Amino acid sequence: MPRVRIDLAYDGAEYAGFARQPDQRTVQGDLEDALDRLCATPGTRTVCAGRTDRGVHALAQVVHVDVPDGLDVDGLSSRLGAMLGDAISVWSAVEVDPSFDARFSARERAYRYRLAPRPADPRTRGHVWHVRGPLDARAMAAELPALHGEHDFASFCRRAEGGHTRRRLDEVVLHDRPDGQLHVVLRGPAFCHQMVRSIVGSLVEVGRSRRGPGFLDAALAARDRAAAGPVAPPHGLTLERVGYPYPWPDAPARG
Amino acid sequence: MPRVRIDLAYDGAEYAGFARQPDQRTVQGDLEDALDRLCATPGTRTVCAGRTDRGVHALAQVVHVDVPDGLDVDGLSSRLGAMLGDAISVWSAVEVDPSFDARFSARERAYRYRLAPRPADPRTRGHVWHVRGPLDARAMAAELPALHGEHDFASFCRRAEGGHTRRRLDEVVLHDRPDGQLHVVLRGPAFCHQMVRSIVGSLVEVGRSRRGPGFLDAALAARDRAAAGPVAPPHGLTLERVGYPYPWPDAPARG
Repeated sequence: MPRVRIDLAYDGAEYAGFARQPDQRTVQGDLEDALDRLCATPGTRTVCAGRTDRGVHALAQVVHVDVPDGLDVDGLSSRLGAMLGDAISVWSAVEVDPSFDARFSARERAYRYRLAPRPADPRTRGHVWHVRGPLDARAMAAELPALHGEHDFASFCRRAEGGHTRRRLDEVVLHDRPDGQLHVVLRGPAFCHQMVRSIVGSLVEVGRSRRGPGFLDAALAARDRAAAGPVAPPHGLTLERVGYPYPWPDAPARG
Repeated sequence: MPRVRIDLAYDGAEYAGFARQPDQRTVQGDLEDALDRLCATPGTRTVCAGRTDRGVHALAQVVHVDVPDGLDVDGLSSRLGAMLGDAISVWSAVEVDPSFDARFSARERAYRYRLAPRPADPRTRGHVWHVRGPLDARAMAAELPALHGEHDFASFCRRAEGGHTRRRLDEVVLHDRPDGQLHVVLRGPAFCHQMVRSIVGSLVEVGRSRRGPGFLDAALAARDRAAAGPVAPPHGLTLERVGYPYPWPDAPARG
């Protein structure tokens, strides 16, 4: 069975997260149902690079799926796109080497959290957290270097059973944009659950002057969920990019 | 009665246009109802710079209103903002000289129409027209210089009774953006009804290669609505800026 890599974007507001759940509209559910019809086989299973929570968006989610021999892969992205409605966009679907795994081959993920002090452009309120402000962007930016590198992020993780909370961040940046939005970009090999939203929630406490300088550093050192601020809402968060080793081996020749 | 200038943005998707209409949710209706309550006087009347149609957004609509003596104008924008919900943002409310008229003092309006060929970022679909593509941006850009300056835009206007259709465009630009969006920016002293959407609809005919080079120039010369393409949908359009003579005389001193 040929393996196909699908790159897609979605508006998280329409879905109860990526992962398939009974009686809920999910990205994986919609995607697998469409693939079942296109492949004329039930039980298609997809694997994604990053399982996004309810309400979280993706600009570049990556999924792999094994499809029946003989399926027209060239026409797959446009046929999938037409079936999936306007809350999902399929950028591409290409055959890849069967060693490609959307989840385990990924070397890094980048997330972007968008926020803006109110009043803010109402057209963006679906994907930008409009925060009751004002926000001190300089104070927020000063908190971020402490998170760079490898740490135990227990304070910023919803504890998963049996999982450790050691992670590495290779990029932690605040962009103070001319349109009034603040973008927090975090990039690293892997993230634990709610890590970005938890970091942003703490950062906003500093931005609103409810917490003083060094709050994130101290929260990190405490290794205790209670030391951090509240979790920021999901709609400001987007999975922005997934990085794989390049070049990936080509799909095997056929014919 | 002091005159107040209010600058505001709104998500047109939530409204049946700016202008008050019975039994419809409109920007003017919501705004005047809120002002009635804040001023504790019924029948507040607002005047706007550009009456946007159903579904059209504004990033910088300007309104004037006369308020009772003694009203706290300094606190007006935040109180209005809190009353109006998240589809309207009030940027500012300031007292101005009574000669200021949001409509008749305006010297120019700038509109921006956003479009993107599919597949496109689904988070933007509320304010960007996702067009079945591909779109030839270079061919589209080549159509625009013909519209610059003063012309009879009858081909691109929904005919208003008794109104002439001579208008001047001081800026007609297509921005081909790195995020895949195309922005058509039109700026001029005044626009006739559906003029921007009609120009963009014709432009997209060229972008899709349904019409050849010179289509807009020929349509303009025809002075006939039937010579132009279809009207583009409202959700891609935003009233982006309104220009007034600067500096405007200050509000009269009180005390």
